[in-house]
Amino acid sequence: STNFLVLKMAKSSFEYVKKFEHDDSLLPNTWIVIRLDGKCFHKFADDHNFTKPNDLRALKLMNYAAYTVLKEYSDILLSFGQSDEYSFVLRKDSCLYKRRSAKLLTTINSKFSSSYVFYWNKFFEHLPLKYPPCFDGRIVLYPCDENLIDYMKWRQADVHINNLYNTTFWTLILKGQLTPVQAEKRLSGTVSADKNEILFQEFNMNYNNEPEIFKRGTILLRKSLLHNKVNKSIIVDVHDDMLKDKFWKENIYILSVKK
Amino acid sequence: STNFLVLKMAKSSFEYVKKFEHDDSLLPNTWIVIRLDGKCFHKFADDHNFTKPNDLRALKLMNYAAYTVLKEYSDILLSFGQSDEYSFVLRKDSCLYKRRSAKLLTTINSKFSSSYVFYWNKFFEHLPLKYPPCFDGRIVLYPCDENLIDYMKWRQADVHINNLYNTTFWTLILKGQLTPVQAEKRLSGTVSADKNEILFQEFNMNYNNEPEIFKRGTILLRKSLLHNKVNKSIIVDVHDDMLKDKFWKENIYILSVKK
Amino acid sequence: STNFLVLKMAKSSFEYVKKFEHDDSLLPNTWIVIRLDGKCFHKFADDHNFTKPNDLRALKLMNYAAYTVLKEYSDILLSFGQSDEYSFVLRKDSCLYKRRSAKLLTTINSKFSSSYVFYWNKFFEHLPLKYPPCFDGRIVLYPCDENLIDYMKWRQADVHINNLYNTTFWTLILKGQLTPVQAEKRLSGTVSADKNEILFQEFNMNYNNEPEIFKRGTILLRKSLLHNKVNKSIIVDVHDDMLKDKFWKENIYILSVKK
Amino acid sequence: STNFLVLKMAKSSFEYVKKFEHDDSLLPNTWIVIRLDGKCFHKFADDHNFTKPNDLRALKLMNYAAYTVLKEYSDILLSFGQSDEYSFVLRKDSCLYKRRSAKLLTTINSKFSSSYVFYWNKFFEHLPLKYPPCFDGRIVLYPCDENLIDYMKWRQADVHINNLYNTTFWTLILKGQLTPVQAEKRLSGTVSADKNEILFQEFNMNYNNEPEIFKRGTILLRKSLLHNKVNKSIIVDVHDDMLKDKFWKENIYILSVKK
Repeated sequence: STNFLVLKMAKSSFEYVKKFEHDDSLLPNTWIVIRLDGKCFHKFADDHNFTKPNDLRALKLMNYAAYTVLKEYSDILLSFGQSDEYSFVLRKDSCLYKRRSAKLLTTINSKFSSSYVFYWNKFFEHLPLKYPPCFDGRIVLYPCDENLIDYMKWRQADVHINNLYNTTFWTLILKGQLTPVQAEKRLSGTVSADKNEILFQEFNMNYNNEPEIFKRGTILLRKSLLHNKVNKSIIVDVHDDMLKDKFWKENIYILSVKK
Repeated sequence: STNFLVLKMAKSSFEYVKKFEHDDSLLPNTWIVIRLDGKCFHKFADDHNFTKPNDLRALKLMNYAAYTVLKEYSDILLSFGQSDEYSFVLRKDSCLYKRRSAKLLTTINSKFSSSYVFYWNKFFEHLPLKYPPCFDGRIVLYPCDENLIDYMKWRQADVHINNLYNTTFWTLILKGQLTPVQAEKRLSGTVSADKNEILFQEFNMNYNNEPEIFKRGTILLRKSLLHNKVNKSIIVDVHDDMLKDKFWKENIYILSVKK
Repeated sequence: STNFLVLKMAKSSFEYVKKFEHDDSLLPNTWIVIRLDGKCFHKFADDHNFTKPNDLRALKLMNYAAYTVLKEYSDILLSFGQSDEYSFVLRKDSCLYKRRSAKLLTTINSKFSSSYVFYWNKFFEHLPLKYPPCFDGRIVLYPCDENLIDYMKWRQADVHINNLYNTTFWTLILKGQLTPVQAEKRLSGTVSADKNEILFQEFNMNYNNEPEIFKRGTILLRKSLLHNKVNKSIIVDVHDDMLKDKFWKENIYILSVKK
Repeated sequence: STNFLVLKMAKSSFEYVKKFEHDDSLLPNTWIVIRLDGKCFHKFADDHNFTKPNDLRALKLMNYAAYTVLKEYSDILLSFGQSDEYSFVLRKDSCLYKRRSAKLLTTINSKFSSSYVFYWNKFFEHLPLKYPPCFDGRIVLYPCDENLIDYMKWRQADVHINNLYNTTFWTLILKGQLTPVQAEKRLSGTVSADKNEILFQEFNMNYNNEPEIFKRGTILLRKSLLHNKVNKSIIVDVHDDMLKDKFWKENIYILSVKK
């Protein structure tokens, strides 16, 4: 039988191992961005027959998982998702978990991951989830608003460019009957104008009419709403153009919100 | 309509923000331990009517989620779980994700979290999961075997001590009709021998006969199995006493496995 | 005799140890402050009979060592010294040594330390330096101008407060014939007005007439000078009041200087 | 005149800037190696007419500066110097300055730098030091003895190889009347045997007879000495071959010394 007195003494003799943990608190007064990325999501999309080039159910599930995270953490001011990635922006002055890097990163990543599975059926209905998906995460600091805004613009410029490519690529395959190898060859060396032209001339598609969610990804924002004479904060999803100054002029309040 | 030429130029002008990411690769030749912890699991356990003091279904689900992680990452040599926490030990010489700390931490945490939801029904059957759970994670380095072994002993000593307390506490409530406040009062100031005595005298329970999984938690190990004359590596769950040298003598090969 | 072929092979087999160095580059676009502090300078001051409460020679030597550092590193925009400490502010966008923390810290610390010894005689003339002094150093990041300015104000407020105490303390000893213990007792519980009063009433000293270098420390700044119709950048030492907005209004150009 | 009450309140309002300092304590139970390197020492050597390829005075000054550091910090067990670099090995279990990285690095670097200037005349006599030299520093962790020993071997293999090259190069110039460009050309593509041969055939020099300090650098060790029946710890300089196991067998006690 266990000798508990010995055990307690033993336990305290092992506790020195706690000292090997290092303090990873992040620099104060700095924007904290956490970006999650689907791991092997090409395969995951194939395994679950995602519509190409964009699966609206999958995008909405991503948005909903992110929404779940925002509801939980009021220190997240802004969030942006596209494809299988999502970025979360924490307020500059956030003291959440004393700004400990690993703690922030893992709780947000974990909540997002488990929400993705939990809400799968809400968007995919009877299509079963075949295995648990995985998202990696990273944390990046931006000292000033300009750097943060450029980060957001960078991620949105990325969707724009990838989506035009993917839309043309998959149209060549799905409507043009090309193989993936042929489609890739056809697009090699083309500029954006060429891709627009292919879509328009050969498939009668105007890329500009594609849904905003595909072309621009999704921004989750907190808005104040006057409801029955009471101010209420709600989370809205928009597909605005963050590359335009107009967006930041209208929404700069997001970054300057005081606690 | 979007001017893609301008867009590509813009995108490249934003890419400087990538330089704000910092290199977080971990010291080579050092044991990497990743520990996950359920967030607000007291509430989570209440919300899902977990059996007190231990819910076998919940423990088995934890083990299964950990097993899913081990199957995916062969660099994890050893794992230990108890209550709502799980520790994963990566080989000293692991080069997984170039030893990047955030990447290792988040992929393992995410896989575990999404598996927990995914396999919920396998263990809880018709009891619905009410909301997505959340696990935080941390990463700790141990330079030598002795430190690592002391870490494992520390976590197991922790179960032992907590479980005796919890078992007595809940027996006083469930069988002894005390309120939680009364049970706490009753146990205040008692040593382990007192608790053993309460269980035995008042409830005719021999603590030593409690299930090993409750008293010691679960160790997941890789074992080599000779199957049809072929060596196969399998993952087994055991509830051995890691506080005894015997365990480490028999299993030290785990730590010295070469790629 | 040495077999060099074997030696070269051996050497390359040891080179893996280089991989244990970690990348310590500092967050871009952030103010870098390096502060040096004399180690055991109470003893050092006693051993070299420094005048109490301030030794002008010692302060000027500190300033000169700092000036030597500024001459060498044009990325240092501003510097502030008091007593046995000196702070150096590197431009936000500095890429000096790729912003590697240890490299920046050690070169500046080393240059300062060796300059202190090298120029000792310039200020102490025939008083010999008895042993090599030692300065420790730390590196701190400030994301915005306001934080940096508050840092500078903090260090200057520190001189102000310490110097009033030290001046009164040493006047009580040197002119008032108190022992250090008596002087400490006398000052215990006094506020600043009391100390001003002691100096004025008992020793006919007006604290406000004390030299600025004692009360405010020394700021090293780069100024542009028109010399023979050519713009020349020079380093000047001033003793301005950084706690006043006036200083920052006049000198804010320092922080906004472009390369 | 200064309002000190306002000043004290102001000071406390600035003190938040202290929170921007980050905890940089090093992983426990791990070898700490600090390596210092002369900055622009090619130029420094030329400016002070250092004898080529090795200046014994300069090497002895390096050794003496290192000795000064070892005398000060008993946690340094071992030290190795060659050319313009010096490595210091701190005991695995050192708690010096709570293992804070910047503090350890800067105090050792500063003491070394100021000692180099302070003791210059002891070795260079009437040759004046023209300007304050500068050393950079880095800190590297090694988790096990083998890694640490390989580090020491790596640095010594480096001397060996460089010194054979430099000795041949400078002999071709100083005794063979070649220009540096001609000497470089002559040595290009040669292996070590060729260089030995050049020295022997053309200049009647046996490289093996060169002084050990040139070929192997200098190791500073602590030894126990029985003096008048009392054990005394002294620091000795040796030029042993660390690439041979013999050295480590005889000196392994250094690494296992207990406090």
